[in-house]
Parts: sequence; structure tokens; C-alpha cells
Amino acid sequence: MDYRPVNFGQKFGLLREQWQPRVVAELNDYQFKVVRLEGDFVWHSHADTDEAFVVMEGELRIDFRDGAVRIGPGEMFVVPKGVEHKPYAEREVKMLLIEPRGVFNTGDQGGERTAQNDVWI
Amino acid sequence: MDYRPVNFGQKFGLLREQWQPRVVAELNDYQFKVVRLEGDFVWHSHADTDEAFVVMEGELRIDFRDGAVRIGPGEMFVVPKGVEHKPYAEREVKMLLIEPRGVFNTGDQGGERTAQNDVWI
Repeated sequence: MDYRPVNFGQKFGLLREQWQPRVVAELNDYQFKVVRLEGDFVWHSHADTDEAFVVMEGELRIDFRDGAVRIGPGEMFVVPKGVEHKPYAEREVKMLLIEPRGVFNTGDQGGERTAQNDVWI
Repeated sequence: MDYRPVNFGQKFGLLREQWQPRVVAELNDYQFKVVRLEGDFVWHSHADTDEAFVVMEGELRIDFRDGAVRIGPGEMFVVPKGVEHKPYAEREVKMLLIEPRGVFNTGDQGGERTAQNDVWI
């Protein structure tokens, strides 16, 4: 059988819109999502789960109520569950999100920035 | 507060031995592990979990009983639970493993290639 890897560069090339995570792989009940971000997001948290950010290109800043983290290419950060955070990217960032299936991008906050969930690319 | 990302390059630099996965982050009950591989491994499977491979440098081949996949830099592959596989790297590969806490590198096979588990770097 011919097995094929997921190529992140190819997947990023298919992403037409920023802030719209798209699923590229599943690991048990967890999903790997690619997303392009630029600009400011909304404050939110995820009551039931941590959330992993892995940056491929650009620099992502995640603001917390008591500080911030800057994540560059080849770096990752895990936001603990329940912790309020706000992603920000001065220039476009290409990154992976890893989190359980069913997690929405705006967490418990909802609102107009909420992306369609569980869409594969 | 000063939050710090995990830098994969820095972590790879701390790995003294090949085939010894080291934990760099946790996401709920899942772990991100860095590992350097070269040469052949043993056939094994993980009865209870999928296993994600994300290649950062080099090319990893994973052999299956009915084929193989080649995973290059910027690519990933998820080996489904219960599927026998054997990693192989002609030249050194630097990669991430993502899997639940408690998973051994040799799965249900055990033996002398079994690495110490749950060691952070």
C-alpha cells in the first residue's frame, strides 16, 4: 500500500482565509489543524482542555492577563486549560493547533470570530 | 509573568543519544517528545493508541507489513493503533513524537530497544 504523509507546506497553500483552522490529521480523539493568523484575536479560554500552538512561519504572540509569550518558527507553547489568552500576529503566522476534536477557536467565548469547526483540508 | 516557548532546536541540542525520546511538553494527558533516530528499529505496535510522527530534519521511513511511508521535513504521519510498524532512517532524523503519556517506544514488543519513558529534557 502507498501511504502518504501530510505535508504542512502543501496544506498551508490550500488555506484561503486567515483565522480558519483546518484539520489535517487525527491522533485518537485529537486533531492537528493548520491555520494562518494575522492581527488580533479575541480573549477566550477553553475550560476543559489545554491547547498546543506550534509555529512554522512568523512570530505569534499570545497575551495572557499577566504576561505574554512569543513563539517563533520551530517553537511551541501549550496554553493550559482555563487560562484566558489572546493570540496576536503583527505579520502573518503559519502554525499548527493541536487539541481534542470538538474544540472551537473562540473557546467558551463564542461570537463572530468563531470559525467553522472540524473541517478537513 | 514571563512565559517561555519550547524551542525544538535547543531541545535537539540537548539530546545525547539516538532512540531516546525526551518529553518537552504536555497537552492534557498527551506528551510531545523530541528524538533523534538513525538506522533500524524493531517491529512493534501500540494496541491502545495512535502515534504521531512529525519530522523536523532528515527523512524517516516507516515500514508497514504492506508498504511504507517516507516523511520529510515539514511533514507528519499518524500510525493507527494496532498497526505493526518499523521506523528506519538512513541518515539521522530529528523528529517529534506525540502520543499519550505512558506509551513506550517499543509498544507491546518490549525488548532491549525499549527506552526509559516519561523523561523530560
